[in-house]
Amino acid sequence: MTDLAALLDSIPTPSSEAADRARQRQGTLTKPTGALGRLEDLSIWVSAAQGECPPHAFARPRVVIFAGDHGVARTAQTSAYPPEVTAQMVLNFVSGGAAVNVLARQAGASVRIIDVSVDADPAYAQAIDPEVVAHRIRRGSGSIDREDAMSSAETVAAFELGRRIADEEIDTGADLLIPGDMGIGNTTPAAAIIGLLANADAATVTGKGTGIDDVTWMRKCAAVRDAMRRGKPHKGEPLALLTAIGSPDFAAATGFLLQAAVRGVPVILDGTISTACALVADRLSYRAKQWWLAGHRSTEPAQSIALDRLDLVPIVDYGMRLGEGTGALLALLIVQSAAATLREMATFGEAGVSDRDA
Amino acid sequence: MTDLAALLDSIPTPSSEAADRARQRQGTLTKPTGALGRLEDLSIWVSAAQGECPPHAFARPRVVIFAGDHGVARTAQTSAYPPEVTAQMVLNFVSGGAAVNVLARQAGASVRIIDVSVDADPAYAQAIDPEVVAHRIRRGSGSIDREDAMSSAETVAAFELGRRIADEEIDTGADLLIPGDMGIGNTTPAAAIIGLLANADAATVTGKGTGIDDVTWMRKCAAVRDAMRRGKPHKGEPLALLTAIGSPDFAAATGFLLQAAVRGVPVILDGTISTACALVADRLSYRAKQWWLAGHRSTEPAQSIALDRLDLVPIVDYGMRLGEGTGALLALLIVQSAAATLREMATFGEAGVSDRDA
Repeated sequence: MTDLAALLDSIPTPSSEAADRARQRQGTLTKPTGALGRLEDLSIWVSAAQGECPPHAFARPRVVIFAGDHGVARTAQTSAYPPEVTAQMVLNFVSGGAAVNVLARQAGASVRIIDVSVDADPAYAQAIDPEVVAHRIRRGSGSIDREDAMSSAETVAAFELGRRIADEEIDTGADLLIPGDMGIGNTTPAAAIIGLLANADAATVTGKGTGIDDVTWMRKCAAVRDAMRRGKPHKGEPLALLTAIGSPDFAAATGFLLQAAVRGVPVILDGTISTACALVADRLSYRAKQWWLAGHRSTEPAQSIALDRLDLVPIVDYGMRLGEGTGALLALLIVQSAAATLREMATFGEAGVSDRDA
Repeated sequence: MTDLAALLDSIPTPSSEAADRARQRQGTLTKPTGALGRLEDLSIWVSAAQGECPPHAFARPRVVIFAGDHGVARTAQTSAYPPEVTAQMVLNFVSGGAAVNVLARQAGASVRIIDVSVDADPAYAQAIDPEVVAHRIRRGSGSIDREDAMSSAETVAAFELGRRIADEEIDTGADLLIPGDMGIGNTTPAAAIIGLLANADAATVTGKGTGIDDVTWMRKCAAVRDAMRRGKPHKGEPLALLTAIGSPDFAAATGFLLQAAVRGVPVILDGTISTACALVADRLSYRAKQWWLAGHRSTEPAQSIALDRLDLVPIVDYGMRLGEGTGALLALLIVQSAAATLREMATFGEAGVSDRDA
């Protein structure tokens, strides 16, 4: 296991020098100062993250989906869908038929799928894409309302897996990372983690997930409440918290988010799962979030609470609640456009346009 | 002049049959029902507008910028920029250096510029692109706080010009239209028109435009108030209202919006100017707005008031106030992505994924 303190120390700060140049350049472009609103802020953020002004177009944005099953979905039946759907959706990702695949194609991104802890015989994917199941930490997770999600050793292994995947991606050219998720029942641990870390009660953080009815919601609330009670003693120790009420796929995403920051590669967060993991990662290193943008606002109440704690303002808000990386991919379209204005617009001087002070 | 009643009667209704099929298909895609939120609504809207399910990707989205100067900017000095900037920006559009050009490239759209009433010797553009100035109705407009913007004949000519441009674009393959604008001072007539048609007072509809100071804002308020007083007798006659307190470029955009509806071609509205023209067009034919989406929310207060009256909810909201078509182009990215999910996602059956009722 890496020394976490050393990890924290090695997270760089985005370039304030590039940000200054970007801010200055925005003021010379042929438009009234500030007229592009948040697009200007985003373009400056991208410049700072790339250490370049003007910023380049992201050449290899990558979604990495960390898939895992959640014991609580089976024991407490907190989801509208049967747990088998997790493995089925992994195959759907592999064959390119899911929403994340479609939106990645639209945004010029590509998708990688890692089965961290799907509760299915690895044979389900072996013939189709053996790499998907090559990193498996365990089958499913413990039912967090009554037992630990996994062992401490599994938490560390999953966290290190996420870091390793980030390194692999960055070493093969990824210049922007999006953590995606798939796992029936995964909003239950997300709600419990956010509830604990943001001091919100179970009923406040428990949402309708994929679209559950009121009776299921009450059952889910009870499971979140029980998980929060179990997690409380570990509130100050992020990895122990993941062991108690997280899951292997959450631990992997948390490691992935931190390693992206260590490498100085920008991230667009997606929905409830990646925001919950971001909140955990933020407790490990407060410097990491300088590398993150919030992609979208989910309909899950816990996600908005977590975004607020992280002081991140989502880029799009379409009432989506799908996960996978879908919200972040819409945000990527906007981020690329914002960077393009800073890169490609003519200055007042170049275009011979009179500025207001002229 | 076309018979306006006949024009109204000829506006078709988007296909409810295609919308039904789209709604049904959304329910079979591999995601929880409703999980794509507003993306689902947008995809259904596109299907209805195209009369097809699944919808195709828009192949030739076109921005048409109607440029014109506004006498009130010179006489009442309501803008932060000198009127010469209008012609300079037209040339910037032609050479591809403005924000609208950059965002059009990002969204796969192309841009056409029509000088409807720029207050400059046509020679400014003749050598560079004679087509830009070939449709000129007049040089500038009257100062609407004290005189008519133009003659009735000019209003009709500009309105018919806008319709003709829409026809030309559609006949050469445009399958989605975005009305863009350029004109120093153009938020003054927009505010006056919206104030009158939405029964809001001058101080409520007058914004900071390109970024004016408080003293200029007070002068602009007075100009808007005077224009509203002058326009009031014509409130019930949209074309007469444009004559009194509009401008040739507004009349052209209004005709353009109506003709797109007549031809059954979808439109994404942009900011304050196109929304003001949409409000005028809506008074001519209440059926036209079925063909319009609201692209973005501008910081100008009048635009939000007009959107509310039109019952349109903007797709993006980034505190932008540039016009040109820029906000609509960001929305186009989202609309294309929404349509892509409906077109390209696998169904539960195709992917072998268990639905919630399975």
